[in-house]
Amino acid sequence: MLRSRLILLTRMRAVDLIRKKRDSGEHTREEIEFLVSGYTRGETPKIPDYQIAAWLMAAWIRGLSLAETTALTEAMLHSGEVLDLSDLPGKKVDKHSTGGVGDKTSLILAPIVAAGGLTVPMISGRGLGHTGGTLDKLESIPGFNVNLSLEQFRHVLRECGMGLIGQTGEIAPADKKIYALRDATGTVESIGLICASIMSKKLAEGIDALVLDVKTGSGAFMKREEDAVRLAEVMVDTGKRMGKKVVALITDMDQPLGRFAGHSVEIIECIEVLSARGPADLRDLSIELSAWMFFLGERSKSVDEGRRLAEEMVSSGKAREKFKRGIRLQGGDERVVDETDRLPKARSRVDVLSESGGYITGTNCEQFGTALATLGGGREKKEDAIDPGVALEFHKRVGDPVKKGEALATIYYNADARLSEARSMIAASYFVAIEQPREKRPLIRRILGA
Amino acid sequence: MLRSRLILLTRMRAVDLIRKKRDSGEHTREEIEFLVSGYTRGETPKIPDYQIAAWLMAAWIRGLSLAETTALTEAMLHSGEVLDLSDLPGKKVDKHSTGGVGDKTSLILAPIVAAGGLTVPMISGRGLGHTGGTLDKLESIPGFNVNLSLEQFRHVLRECGMGLIGQTGEIAPADKKIYALRDATGTVESIGLICASIMSKKLAEGIDALVLDVKTGSGAFMKREEDAVRLAEVMVDTGKRMGKKVVALITDMDQPLGRFAGHSVEIIECIEVLSARGPADLRDLSIELSAWMFFLGERSKSVDEGRRLAEEMVSSGKAREKFKRGIRLQGGDERVVDETDRLPKARSRVDVLSESGGYITGTNCEQFGTALATLGGGREKKEDAIDPGVALEFHKRVGDPVKKGEALATIYYNADARLSEARSMIAASYFVAIEQPREKRPLIRRILGA
Repeated sequence: MLRSRLILLTRMRAVDLIRKKRDSGEHTREEIEFLVSGYTRGETPKIPDYQIAAWLMAAWIRGLSLAETTALTEAMLHSGEVLDLSDLPGKKVDKHSTGGVGDKTSLILAPIVAAGGLTVPMISGRGLGHTGGTLDKLESIPGFNVNLSLEQFRHVLRECGMGLIGQTGEIAPADKKIYALRDATGTVESIGLICASIMSKKLAEGIDALVLDVKTGSGAFMKREEDAVRLAEVMVDTGKRMGKKVVALITDMDQPLGRFAGHSVEIIECIEVLSARGPADLRDLSIELSAWMFFLGERSKSVDEGRRLAEEMVSSGKAREKFKRGIRLQGGDERVVDETDRLPKARSRVDVLSESGGYITGTNCEQFGTALATLGGGREKKEDAIDPGVALEFHKRVGDPVKKGEALATIYYNADARLSEARSMIAASYFVAIEQPREKRPLIRRILGA
Repeated sequence: MLRSRLILLTRMRAVDLIRKKRDSGEHTREEIEFLVSGYTRGETPKIPDYQIAAWLMAAWIRGLSLAETTALTEAMLHSGEVLDLSDLPGKKVDKHSTGGVGDKTSLILAPIVAAGGLTVPMISGRGLGHTGGTLDKLESIPGFNVNLSLEQFRHVLRECGMGLIGQTGEIAPADKKIYALRDATGTVESIGLICASIMSKKLAEGIDALVLDVKTGSGAFMKREEDAVRLAEVMVDTGKRMGKKVVALITDMDQPLGRFAGHSVEIIECIEVLSARGPADLRDLSIELSAWMFFLGERSKSVDEGRRLAEEMVSSGKAREKFKRGIRLQGGDERVVDETDRLPKARSRVDVLSESGGYITGTNCEQFGTALATLGGGREKKEDAIDPGVALEFHKRVGDPVKKGEALATIYYNADARLSEARSMIAASYFVAIEQPREKRPLIRRILGA
């Protein structure tokens, strides 16, 4: 059996597989494994990056079936280490968001769910373009170390039930290599490839269940709801094929989540929510995602019960304490939770005023993130450094009335070289009309996989 | 102007151009130049092969417009040296064939056209897969050197009006580099890419006119006539856009051209035609192609007059003498023309017999070439050595009657390891039926660009 499989692999040629995908064929599991292992592990025969680049473009244009996506996810997952956390108490659950502006729920729900008795082994990413990254936000806490070894990570998880680190070399190295190639070859925005990239990393965490927060709207990667739904469906299906419990919430990103976007300000806003304060939209979504994590992690018999448990973890202060403990265990200064002045802050501030009166009917939400990056509060290129104190505060939400000359937003900045550019971008990203918009779009639009 | 162009080039990014083609966009001339020069000349910014591989796949699937194809041809042409043969007498003309089985007209028409007073600067290729290569055939002549420097090539052309060499490093190096990448990434069979590859090399010869022999049928790359016509149209259009006289003959490759396929045997068959003997189909096509070369090269006022001139060059023995002189000037043993026994010959022969009686209704012509390669008379992989004596002789043509047990073909071989395999392939490649096929397909199916 092994022998015949080896012979099969030896006879396979990358160029034939490229042709197959080029001509809209569907790959077998063995073919996908052959491509991934040949490229990333350098196994015989070694497949060079130009062949994978051609295959990625063919896959981008022709698409990948659900079976192909699952096979790709599995091959990428097994390119590295898969954590075995079975010795830790309770189910292991995680959440993944496709990213947006002001999206900071991870830092709220991780302590809530850990306080509720489950283990949350979160491997996160950095921000690029208009979106912020969980790791970058955490690093605005003095001393916080996201670069733990897997051994240290395991220790932190054992001690407090939550851990937040970056992708190590051991976790899905195939994804790291393939992602860099996709970035350089214009093959990023493909449902199958995105799904395999996300799911291979998440499943490497050794989790039992996963809650997906798939954003849609002007600040999301998937601007159209139908695209978000398709991506969510493929991710849910792939996760289930691999024996995991998975649900996806399709949530609104037509405006920023919460009142703030930036790094230290988002930490402060999370502390607010964990202190039973903070903006309603951020609090509601964090509670909802936590509720699903409790339910899938079998800590509650229903989502409703999970919601009550999540609310209790906040009102009792247990989640807030868990957050402090998590910070301390990863080398950070936990005093920031009580004394937020210890976090970096921008020196100057300026308001962005409305040029007309009426109602906010919508926003070009992505532009807020881009404006923030322009001011140093995000990355335009991968190698850019981030200024953690730079921030945007949003005073108006969709549906709110606004007067001419009233502040729409406040910019907190350090360098003013590109301030006027950022200011115009923000002003132009609020859509104001005389009539109040009738419909109020729900924050959670759909739930899939439940 | 130059400054603004430089600024433009500096701002262009390969990944954006890949995305543009991925999304079916049409490139400007500057964008194509940017890709080709960045890849092949390593100019700033240098473009790595994985980006070009992704672009090639996008171009393969989405296609290239005529304007893009012309721009690509020009960029590849100017990646290297373009011969200036204006100091040599007469117009410079060449022929290019898309290749097939037994296709040897170059070795007949070059001496005919040179004898008629034009200059034929022929840069040819090697055989791969089921097709033979002009250079490989010439190398079966003892001493014949196809690896001349451009200076030596110019000398040979001045002395006898014809020269046959391989692609040097100076000629269209971009094509060489891109072709190798296409071969490895499953992006060979694309009209635009094929056209740019052929035309950039041919136009680098410094010719005034080009006759294209675009093969169609079971032994051609373009099996379907409509594909051959499309490729021909694009090549004719590209050549004309670049100020050259170009016509394309769409010719039959549903069965081998002439009676022989192999290397030394094809040299012998060419000598036969140059000696006013040889098979009718090979003679007719060689005369016809020569006639067009004379006409486009302004050596005759009409194709008819060109045809008469070509026939005269054969019947007078002038073309045969020119061939001898060409062989001598490139270091070969010219005595082979009078004493063909001096050419390598296979030791053994065996007939392939018909398993049924009736009429030949068609052939799987490509299989003949593949069978020949199986016996060492061709290359399965680029690095394979060729046995020049191995050959196939075809006794039956489409429309001929055949008796059960009668010889369809004869194999001339040296090694018998894969003889039975080759024998079955050949036997299975003749289609025999009881009824005689009514229609006789013409050798020259269409002429484009005239």
